[in-house]
Amino acid sequence: MTSTAPQHDINSPDNLARRRHGQSVLSKIDGHQGEAVVDSLADINPALGHHVAAFVFGDIYDRPGLDARSRQLVTLGVLTALGGCEPQLKVHIGAALNVGISREEITEALLHAAVFCGFPRALNATFIAREVFAERDDPLAS
Amino acid sequence: MTSTAPQHDINSPDNLARRRHGQSVLSKIDGHQGEAVVDSLADINPALGHHVAAFVFGDIYDRPGLDARSRQLVTLGVLTALGGCEPQLKVHIGAALNVGISREEITEALLHAAVFCGFPRALNATFIAREVFAERDDPLAS
Amino acid sequence: MTSTAPQHDINSPDNLARRRHGQSVLSKIDGHQGEAVVDSLADINPALGHHVAAFVFGDIYDRPGLDARSRQLVTLGVLTALGGCEPQLKVHIGAALNVGISREEITEALLHAAVFCGFPRALNATFIAREVFAERDDPLAS
Amino acid sequence: MTSTAPQHDINSPDNLARRRHGQSVLSKIDGHQGEAVVDSLADINPALGHHVAAFVFGDIYDRPGLDARSRQLVTLGVLTALGGCEPQLKVHIGAALNVGISREEITEALLHAAVFCGFPRALNATFIAREVFAERDDPLAS
Amino acid sequence: MTSTAPQHDINSPDNLARRRHGQSVLSKIDGHQGEAVVDSLADINPALGHHVAAFVFGDIYDRPGLDARSRQLVTLGVLTALGGCEPQLKVHIGAALNVGISREEITEALLHAAVFCGFPRALNATFIAREVFAERDDPLAS
Amino acid sequence: MTSTAPQHDINSPDNLARRRHGQSVLSKIDGHQGEAVVDSLADINPALGHHVAAFVFGDIYDRPGLDARSRQLVTLGVLTALGGCEPQLKVHIGAALNVGISREEITEALLHAAVFCGFPRALNATFIAREVFAERDDPLAS
Repeated sequence: MTSTAPQHDINSPDNLARRRHGQSVLSKIDGHQGEAVVDSLADINPALGHHVAAFVFGDIYDRPGLDARSRQLVTLGVLTALGGCEPQLKVHIGAALNVGISREEITEALLHAAVFCGFPRALNATFIAREVFAERDDPLAS
Repeated sequence: MTSTAPQHDINSPDNLARRRHGQSVLSKIDGHQGEAVVDSLADINPALGHHVAAFVFGDIYDRPGLDARSRQLVTLGVLTALGGCEPQLKVHIGAALNVGISREEITEALLHAAVFCGFPRALNATFIAREVFAERDDPLAS
Repeated sequence: MTSTAPQHDINSPDNLARRRHGQSVLSKIDGHQGEAVVDSLADINPALGHHVAAFVFGDIYDRPGLDARSRQLVTLGVLTALGGCEPQLKVHIGAALNVGISREEITEALLHAAVFCGFPRALNATFIAREVFAERDDPLAS
Repeated sequence: MTSTAPQHDINSPDNLARRRHGQSVLSKIDGHQGEAVVDSLADINPALGHHVAAFVFGDIYDRPGLDARSRQLVTLGVLTALGGCEPQLKVHIGAALNVGISREEITEALLHAAVFCGFPRALNATFIAREVFAERDDPLAS
Repeated sequence: MTSTAPQHDINSPDNLARRRHGQSVLSKIDGHQGEAVVDSLADINPALGHHVAAFVFGDIYDRPGLDARSRQLVTLGVLTALGGCEPQLKVHIGAALNVGISREEITEALLHAAVFCGFPRALNATFIAREVFAERDDPLAS
Repeated sequence: MTSTAPQHDINSPDNLARRRHGQSVLSKIDGHQGEAVVDSLADINPALGHHVAAFVFGDIYDRPGLDARSRQLVTLGVLTALGGCEPQLKVHIGAALNVGISREEITEALLHAAVFCGFPRALNATFIAREVFAERDDPLAS
């Protein structure tokens, strides 16, 4: 690290490189919806947007120790259990499709989650899955 | 269904068959620890024990739409996110090992979960993973 | 159980009977709104719909060990505490009225819950109660 | 209110009267265990102890709009759903027994809660119920 | 306390004084939005409205042991972590501005919270902050 | 960034520098207890330990937009609300003392949190505060 900028400076050359790398991972997994979330943070909380790209996708999502499919299954479990994460579920159910998890596997995963976090959380996540699937069938309608 | 017993009668022939089937699925996935949990409910809440076996394992875990590995990844995500589920994490981190998820994948899944439910939940789940791994290394020590 | 269908087959004669029984319990407690939720799952996650009917209502709600009023009080407590369950609160505040819990008791239960899960959750549940009560007063307006 | 003490002064005559009234309600419902919790706060957070007595029990628990049995059913639902409230569940499962809810109704309520907040929360609450019942059977053993 | 009204009577002279005092604290911190929430409870759950004013603001918010800025920082942490509290976050992000916390500190606090409760909760709270800031910039647009 | 190591390599020179910087921030705020948590992860989940140091403390805690006192108040709010974070509360109540928040302010913050996340969460956090304060009074006893 030849830069003398402090580590917290999100616009240092090092952090710019980390963010760009994260954005490339993000766009592969979450597609346009994920990019749109990060872009939308530029005015209100740019550091949050930086860390979603640089840390979440550049540091974590890109690690080789767990394949993309497995990461999305864990993500579906966490987001369904938390509740109140409908916007994130929308992005990550789309991401699950992007990495090759089938619609049937996604809805089965949500039924499975019901056992551990209850039927209301599973129902709410399933309603989001329906929206995501409908948008994939008819992208112009969304 | 030839039985005239009401559906809620957990000791009807139909429900006995459902429970036995569930127990066989449970013992394959969760092993002795899972069986011990269900057995321990016999005196205090036998209907809860019945539904853990008959519904959770007989009805849900055995469904063909999602492989055992994927189910455990969703389960790890849900239990880590919920928090306060240390006893269940202990059983299901063991179950993750039983269905072929490696130790490295499990700890990687918990790091991944930190992104979505925060570091404290991931840390607490990792401390449970350490206990489970130690018991596998030295079963007599537990 | 004379059927040779696997237990997880939600369209076996046994499971069809379980689901039909559950739907009759569901319609008595949750009325049209509850039925609509299950029906809406037919295309996206039919197994989830099956288990809401067969397990939640057929197996659990119909058990004789706790009266319908008590079950709805527990349900109000759980759904208020979970948060993010507005659609389910809407159905189950309606169900509370259906089993004879008065409006005053419902809002009192939500105030009581505030002690244990905080005022924001109690406020959000109360806003749903207002919607449910308004729809009962003027069904055509909903 | 003839007192000129500020409302936040927990040792004003008005607040002392409110706290004493709350303590009498508390001791009727929660018994010695509830009193012990409030007493234990005297050194570390006396204002928290004051408000548990004066507000929770004096203001809320004593309200006539919902009977004691119903309040404890809501409480069991909330505490089971929250998770991580084992000390409070211990006191309030005891309180449920104190207001006439049977052991069978309590365990049935916890099974019922599993539908809405998942089996792990219901299991953990059931393990606490077992402790409470055992202590009632053999008070000297606790 | 010369009043002979029971403590739970929210319209006794004592409780009316407590409520009025709380409303004056509430209006200073939460402004019109907070008042509107309490007013909106008058028809549906007046006791909940009373305790929001008399207890939350009259008893707790007005205590001298913690300054207003610190209280709002704790509040932001709790509401962000709970999730599903968007209406309350809207009021309390406004309150944070009212007590002198800057926009930059608020969004920094939400980024900080992401570490402990995960990025989805921080993102959802940030989206609410954007709404609040926009309304302050253009009050007529809201 | 002159290094050619991938961003996810936690032992690259860049990440080693980030981690070392984070550890120095961590030791200033959390003291020995925080260091002990990170050290204890070395064998079981070193990447989690890296990101606690490099991301949580190096990237976030060290940012200039919010003072240390304010960060700890947000942290107390989040951890109290989450529940089940007793080990983290222990570290961060200690950290609150380290950055100059008084014992009285800490317990007042926990009482304040009760309003938003309920009394059980506030009680459990207060019990942890008592442990932390006792250890400060008598370090040898812990």
